[in-house]
Amino acid sequence: MATDLKDMTFVNHRKLTRFVGGAFEKLGAPKDDAEIGANVLVQADLRGVDTHGVIRFNPQAWYVKWLTEGSMTARPKIQIISESSSTALLDGDRGMGMVIGHRSMELAIRKAKDSGIGMVAVRNSRHYGMSAYYSMMALPHDMIGIAMTNASRQVVPTFGREARFGTNPMCFAVPTDKELPFVLDMATTTAAAGKLELAARQGKPIPHGWALNEGAKATDDPRVAQQARKLLPLGGSREGGSHKGYGLAIVVEILCGVLSGTLTALNADQDPRGHFFGAIRIDTFRPVDEFKRDMDRLLRELKTTPPIEGQDRVYAAGEIEFETAAERREHGIPLLPSVLKGLRDVGERVGVPYDLE
Amino acid sequence: MATDLKDMTFVNHRKLTRFVGGAFEKLGAPKDDAEIGANVLVQADLRGVDTHGVIRFNPQAWYVKWLTEGSMTARPKIQIISESSSTALLDGDRGMGMVIGHRSMELAIRKAKDSGIGMVAVRNSRHYGMSAYYSMMALPHDMIGIAMTNASRQVVPTFGREARFGTNPMCFAVPTDKELPFVLDMATTTAAAGKLELAARQGKPIPHGWALNEGAKATDDPRVAQQARKLLPLGGSREGGSHKGYGLAIVVEILCGVLSGTLTALNADQDPRGHFFGAIRIDTFRPVDEFKRDMDRLLRELKTTPPIEGQDRVYAAGEIEFETAAERREHGIPLLPSVLKGLRDVGERVGVPYDLE
Repeated sequence: MATDLKDMTFVNHRKLTRFVGGAFEKLGAPKDDAEIGANVLVQADLRGVDTHGVIRFNPQAWYVKWLTEGSMTARPKIQIISESSSTALLDGDRGMGMVIGHRSMELAIRKAKDSGIGMVAVRNSRHYGMSAYYSMMALPHDMIGIAMTNASRQVVPTFGREARFGTNPMCFAVPTDKELPFVLDMATTTAAAGKLELAARQGKPIPHGWALNEGAKATDDPRVAQQARKLLPLGGSREGGSHKGYGLAIVVEILCGVLSGTLTALNADQDPRGHFFGAIRIDTFRPVDEFKRDMDRLLRELKTTPPIEGQDRVYAAGEIEFETAAERREHGIPLLPSVLKGLRDVGERVGVPYDLE
Repeated sequence: MATDLKDMTFVNHRKLTRFVGGAFEKLGAPKDDAEIGANVLVQADLRGVDTHGVIRFNPQAWYVKWLTEGSMTARPKIQIISESSSTALLDGDRGMGMVIGHRSMELAIRKAKDSGIGMVAVRNSRHYGMSAYYSMMALPHDMIGIAMTNASRQVVPTFGREARFGTNPMCFAVPTDKELPFVLDMATTTAAAGKLELAARQGKPIPHGWALNEGAKATDDPRVAQQARKLLPLGGSREGGSHKGYGLAIVVEILCGVLSGTLTALNADQDPRGHFFGAIRIDTFRPVDEFKRDMDRLLRELKTTPPIEGQDRVYAAGEIEFETAAERREHGIPLLPSVLKGLRDVGERVGVPYDLE
C-alpha cells in the first residue's frame, strides 16, 4: 500500500492496462495473451495487491526480463496432457503464467458446466501473478473458484532450519447476492513475502513468527529475513499451530506440484511452476438463489460481529480489496516514481509510447 | 495423549471396536452402521486423537445420549437431494454423523471413479468424529481424499469479540508409495478445542493466541477459555495472520454449510451439522506410480530437513498419528479409569457384556 502518498502518481487503470498490454505484445505475445497479462497485473494493483502488480513490470526483473531473455515463452504451445470429464492436466510450455492460468481456469469452468466440477493441474508454467484473478473468473458463472500455485523455496517446515517449499498461496472465490463476493487469497506463511519487502522499505521491525535469520533463529529485522529466505508457515511456531500452515503449504504443493509433475519443493531454482485450478458449479448442489441468500446471511453475520476494543469493524475476506478497487478505479492507481521509471524504461526498450504521467 | 500412563488400562482395539459396535446396535443402529460408528471412534483412539474417540462414548454425552433421547436418528433415511456426474447433495436425516460421513465418502469415491472427481455436500447430519477417517477412505483407491465439517459456534472472527463459527476442521489424505501417507487433519483454530480440555485437566497455562476470555481479552487460563468459548482462528492475532485462519474456517462453512443448507454459523445450537467430502482420482492427471514416487520424494525432502536446536526431527503431516496407531495396535489403547467407567455404564444400560478390563 501507499507509503508516501505525496510522491505517488495516480494512473488510470485503463491507460495502464493498454500500456502494459502494448508492451507485452511488443515482447512477442499474441494480442489476446498480451491483454490477459496486462489485466492480471493491473487487477492486482487495483485490488491493492501491489506486490503482484506493475511493480514487477520493468526491464530488470520478472516478466519483461524473462520474455526478453527467452526463458519465458511468448507464444507457448499449451497442451492437454490428460483429461477426464471433470479433470485435466495441462503443460504450459513455460509461457506467461497469467495466460496459462487464464486458459486453465477457462477449462476448469467449462468442465464444471458439463459435469459439476472442473479441476485442472498445470505443469511447466511460470509465475502467474495474483491468485484472486483466476478464482474470481468463476464468479459470473455462479461457481466457486479455486486457484493455487507453488512457489520458490523460502519457507521452513515446523522444527526445520532450512527452507524446503514456497509461500504456496491458496485462493477461494465465492459468489454472493447483494454482499461483496467472498475472496480469500492467502499465502500459507504467516506473512506474504511482499510484507517483508514493505517492512524493509519502511524500516520497520517485523513481528516474531514471520521469519528466521540465516542461523534459523527468530529475527525482527526484515532485511535480515529477506536475505535469509526462511519464512515461517502460518502459525509461526509449533505452539502457535505452524504445523497447520506447513501442512497447508504441502497440500498446495501436492495439488500444484505432485499432481502435475512440477514440484518446486525439490528444486532450488524458482522455475518452472505448477498450478491448480478448480470450479464448483453451485446449482448441482442447491439452487443458486438459495446459496447466494445464505452467503449474504453468513457474511452479514460475520461483519456485524461487535469489534474488540481499538477496532472499528470486522471484515469478511476480500472486502478491503473490493473497497480499494472501487477507490482506485475512480481516482487512479497510486504508483511510486521508481515503478513509473520501470514502466518508462520498458516502453523505451520495446517501443511503446509512454503516456502514464 | 496419555497424561498418567500408570493409571491407564491398555485395551485391545478389536475388543474395543466389538464392544462399542455391540452397544451402537443395542441403541438401535443396524449392524453395518453400528460397526462403522465403532470403527470411526476406535480409529481416532488408535491414531492418538483421543478427544474424538471412546471418551465420547458414555451415557452422559454425545452419541449415546443423543441416540437414547432420540435427537440422533438410529435408522436414518439418507437421501440424495441433487446430483450430477461429479457432485451430490445428501440429507442425513440427523443420523449418526459417522455413518452419514462414511456413506457420503463412498459416494464421492464412486463418482470420482466415473468422472475423475467426486464431491458430496451433506445437510442435516450430526457430529461425525475424526475427519481423517473419511479422507483416508480414498487412499486404497489411489485417490486424494478430502473431508470437512462445520461445528458449533466457539471461534471469534479476527477483530471480533463474539464467537460466530466453529473450529471447522479440514482434512486431506494423499497416497504414497513407500512413505507413510500424507494426512493433514486440522482445526482451523490455533489449537483444537480438545487442547484446551487437555491443558485444563493438566492444570497448565495455554499460550496467548489460543483463546480469549469472556471480555474478549487474551487469557492463559484454559478453564477460563473453556467457559468463554472464544477460540482464536489459526494465526492468533491479525499480525500473526489470524485473518487467514478465519478465512479458512469460512471456506469450510461455505462448503459444508452454505452449499448444503446447514450453516452452524447462523445457529447458536450445536446441531445439525453440514459436511463436505471430496475424492480426486490421481490417474486422470498422471500415472499413479509417478505420482506416488514424487510423493515419496517430497516427503523425504521434508523429513530430512535439518532440525532447529532442541528438536530431533522434522515431521510430515500424519506421521505421528501413524506411529501412534502402530504402537497402540500392538500394545493396546491406553484408557483412563473415567473413560472405562463411561464404557461400563453404557454396557450396563444397553445390555452389552463389559469385557474390556
